[in-house]
Amino acid sequence: MTSSSYSDHFSIHNLPYGIASSPSHPTPQCATRLHNTVIFLSDLQSAGLFSSIPSLPENIFSNTTLNPFAALPRSTQTQVRHVLQSILQTSSTSSLPESSTADITTVTMHLPVSIPSFTDYSASLPHNQHAGQIILNHPAPPPAFFHFPIGYAGRASTISVSGTPVTRPSGHFYDRTDPSFPQTKKVIFGPCRALDYELELGIIIGKPLPRGQGLKAQDAEEHIFGLVVLNDWSARDIQGLEMVPLGPLNGKNFATTISPWIVTLDALQPFKTPGPEPRVSLPAHLQDPGEFNYDISVVTELEAGSGASTVLGRGNAKDLFWSIRQMCAHLASTGCDLRTGDILGTGTVSGEEEGSYGCLLEVTEGGKKRVMLEGGDGEERGYLIDGDVVRLTAWAGEGVGFGECVGQILPARD
Amino acid sequence: MTSSSYSDHFSIHNLPYGIASSPSHPTPQCATRLHNTVIFLSDLQSAGLFSSIPSLPENIFSNTTLNPFAALPRSTQTQVRHVLQSILQTSSTSSLPESSTADITTVTMHLPVSIPSFTDYSASLPHNQHAGQIILNHPAPPPAFFHFPIGYAGRASTISVSGTPVTRPSGHFYDRTDPSFPQTKKVIFGPCRALDYELELGIIIGKPLPRGQGLKAQDAEEHIFGLVVLNDWSARDIQGLEMVPLGPLNGKNFATTISPWIVTLDALQPFKTPGPEPRVSLPAHLQDPGEFNYDISVVTELEAGSGASTVLGRGNAKDLFWSIRQMCAHLASTGCDLRTGDILGTGTVSGEEEGSYGCLLEVTEGGKKRVMLEGGDGEERGYLIDGDVVRLTAWAGEGVGFGECVGQILPARD
Repeated sequence: MTSSSYSDHFSIHNLPYGIASSPSHPTPQCATRLHNTVIFLSDLQSAGLFSSIPSLPENIFSNTTLNPFAALPRSTQTQVRHVLQSILQTSSTSSLPESSTADITTVTMHLPVSIPSFTDYSASLPHNQHAGQIILNHPAPPPAFFHFPIGYAGRASTISVSGTPVTRPSGHFYDRTDPSFPQTKKVIFGPCRALDYELELGIIIGKPLPRGQGLKAQDAEEHIFGLVVLNDWSARDIQGLEMVPLGPLNGKNFATTISPWIVTLDALQPFKTPGPEPRVSLPAHLQDPGEFNYDISVVTELEAGSGASTVLGRGNAKDLFWSIRQMCAHLASTGCDLRTGDILGTGTVSGEEEGSYGCLLEVTEGGKKRVMLEGGDGEERGYLIDGDVVRLTAWAGEGVGFGECVGQILPARD
Repeated sequence: MTSSSYSDHFSIHNLPYGIASSPSHPTPQCATRLHNTVIFLSDLQSAGLFSSIPSLPENIFSNTTLNPFAALPRSTQTQVRHVLQSILQTSSTSSLPESSTADITTVTMHLPVSIPSFTDYSASLPHNQHAGQIILNHPAPPPAFFHFPIGYAGRASTISVSGTPVTRPSGHFYDRTDPSFPQTKKVIFGPCRALDYELELGIIIGKPLPRGQGLKAQDAEEHIFGLVVLNDWSARDIQGLEMVPLGPLNGKNFATTISPWIVTLDALQPFKTPGPEPRVSLPAHLQDPGEFNYDISVVTELEAGSGASTVLGRGNAKDLFWSIRQMCAHLASTGCDLRTGDILGTGTVSGEEEGSYGCLLEVTEGGKKRVMLEGGDGEERGYLIDGDVVRLTAWAGEGVGFGECVGQILPARD
């Protein structure tokens, strides 16, 4: 699989934003992508192509992150999209300013935003039910699940762009190989033995929301720049010991990976779909009736050392119990601010049926039900082993996809 | 109580760092404090007083945060301290460059660092035991407590400097006034009814630790710029519902307050004291035998609307189960980086005895055992009411203190 394999994800209906560099553009800067062509936006602005948008600040696209552009009003971003679509519809990319484009295979993609904070929700009801069944032997979701999107604060500094390797973390966990387990729960420190991925979508906050202002779900789209695919790598054994009662910390803080192209809500507009009905009455800021989920199909593939690729799960974000608008509104409901570049993860996207799960905890029932790999001469997996490549992809439809979010596991440090 | 009341906290043995502005220095910039005199360090550097320190970058003190200075090697910071002590020992502040000083009462203090992340530990054994007893009716600390410092990621964007008011947050919680509680646990949304403070110390990370490097506790001081007093404001009712199983989020994300002056480890060196003995064998990176706790006494005062001040608790940081060095090493043990300006909270500093507790959860046993205020004509408290001022102070000894970390509760927004 190469970066050019996703040409059909990036039609004129998508036009996502990323940070790219190339031999002709060595400084990372703002870009969009049409099929396999990366377009450096600063060159277009210099050539006057956005002169019809007075609210677009000069040199906004020469920044090394998308934060200044993302912080603008949604309406300005939508105008840029319309200009791009009109240029690219009436002519091919060859009519763009000289050397403003590059083939995707010659480009390096960088982290698209500087990320002040990362909040990770857990908005899939099946994921919560499965995890409850596997870990606690009962499938009831957590007590607050139907009242608001449950979540925790993650580590923003260890979020990397797709392609960045993930070193197996070390930490404390129960030694399940000890003969007296589980009667005696011996705690040991060492390389994680239950390394997992979590397929999520990540919300990228655009226009900031000041502290103390609050936010209704129905007003939240003004503050959402777009979505990425997100892998919330999880050390299940480390997480399992530490999270009582303060939640995950070291079981998650070693790495998170995001796809490089931020797909805008304008591009995703045609794929809106109703979400599940609320189970309880909701306060005003969380009320969000209508079509505010997204029909985005997601796939997890595992590429083992043998090179063969095995699909571990095919899910869809449309059944997430909470909308991305509700996730923003919940965080802001205490008076908490939202900053440009903040990422809010949806939590693992899992369906009810086998084959639709977004993490190995569910696929292998906590490592017990091993999964057979394709073309691997009987090779199987409980959790990830060193050398494994996890590839997450997402596709909305009609030429709008996310490309990939990929990472390879490196051995633990000495 | 005015800002000048802490003159004795800021002797020549302290010389903390903060960000200050004044009529003569309208742009916030780096400063130190000797008794009630604030000294603008950029003026001293311009006058050549630090010319003996070649490793000190030019104009380092004219930055609007301490991050660039904090990121330098500890040895450079120590040299600055020695130069300051030698200047101030041989002459009074009146011999400093003209208009480089200001009386503390004429100065505005600002957030001293830009804070990339906030990790909050819970390192006091009595606090964990009391909270367990009050909330779960058993005093055993969490399962991981003796193996490593337990903690969670907090919200960095809502950390403010002392003096910033705290608006009562709204959120979801169990309605304990409902006649059927606790048989039926009705969840409602509204202004927090159990607003609490938590008296902590905050570790300010100095020289950054790159991702993937790891850190031994015994090497951690190179990365610690200093300590502040920290109030981890907590909405106990919101926190109680949301934290199963992902830990606190909205119950904490509305506000955190820190004292404005960062007291360096050099100033705190004389107050080192042995910490508790480990209860289990520790991995190499957490081993920290010797004198690595700090004998710092801490006081919480509540100033009610009536104006009278009541001491709610007097504790000491010396009995924290984990050292600040171990807290840094634990976070880094997965390969997680430490960034300059990151804050690591110690968790509530509570002793075993009544009168030594660092939060109302413990003082009032979850709001049930109401505390009588002094001079308040029979006024009592369970949790904080609107208008209450919480004042946290800390004192190491011999002219070295932290001043205060203060905040007043404002009513919830409509």
